[in-house]
Amino acid sequence: MNIHYHPIGTIHTPFKKREGTPIQPAGAVGVRGTVEVFSEFADGLKDLAGFSHVMLLYHFHRGTGFSLRVTPFMDSEPRGVFSTRAPKRPNPIGVSIVRLLKIEDGTLHVENVDMLDETPLLDIKPYVPEFDYHEADRIGWLERARGSVGNKKSDDRFA
Amino acid sequence: MNIHYHPIGTIHTPFKKREGTPIQPAGAVGVRGTVEVFSEFADGLKDLAGFSHVMLLYHFHRGTGFSLRVTPFMDSEPRGVFSTRAPKRPNPIGVSIVRLLKIEDGTLHVENVDMLDETPLLDIKPYVPEFDYHEADRIGWLERARGSVGNKKSDDRFA
Repeated sequence: MNIHYHPIGTIHTPFKKREGTPIQPAGAVGVRGTVEVFSEFADGLKDLAGFSHVMLLYHFHRGTGFSLRVTPFMDSEPRGVFSTRAPKRPNPIGVSIVRLLKIEDGTLHVENVDMLDETPLLDIKPYVPEFDYHEADRIGWLERARGSVGNKKSDDRFA
Repeated sequence: MNIHYHPIGTIHTPFKKREGTPIQPAGAVGVRGTVEVFSEFADGLKDLAGFSHVMLLYHFHRGTGFSLRVTPFMDSEPRGVFSTRAPKRPNPIGVSIVRLLKIEDGTLHVENVDMLDETPLLDIKPYVPEFDYHEADRIGWLERARGSVGNKKSDDRFA
């Protein structure tokens, strides 16, 4: 089964290269970017401005191939790729929740962006804590790293 | 730009048809399902069992086409599709966070499944509140519907 998607827009951020890019929105607090939605999809943005946060789905466009074991930025041991948020995955889809500041002319102005500039946008969903928040008892290998994500930056290991 | 993805597995749930399927995990509390990961990707599951919740990304395989305005299950007015979680979207990718009970032989046993049986799996990510939880000030048109998602079921409007 082949699944074909097409970008619906482009994410613009201050991050032109992997090195130094925050690894999660928690490490990008206050960093602003824009999400340009192509004009043929702009009508689908109606009602979105009422939400304070949105979920962006995007294509990690700067990697090729993947490994099933990766050493994440927040750890020193190889981990199964599905237990990490590493960008090089069998289907390289990224998910980030960002704060929505305003929508103007089909462009979302957002805060807490952690993706590379020119990232192809696949989807936008409203962020709804009732759907998306869960009390997690266990966060696996990340338990040790808890609280440090804000300080971690990307390097070129997933180039 | 064309983006090609391939399923990495199949999600099995008790829901064989749209009618009556919960519209979010919050409406599927306690409903169990399994996430079968194809054997060539099973090695990537290492370390995942340490997480109590996982984010599943999947392809809404039972719809064709999309509209930019949709009347969601939780409302009676047409809304911009990106302000909804409706399955018929320009790129029909679904995101659900489910509780992980155990992993056995490349199969995840999970709870709170809200997707149709045989849904193609695209990705699995660990759910980490530090990355994924945000205090949302505003949830737009969903404000009126707050608290009712657990009672809403799908019908065939997105067939």
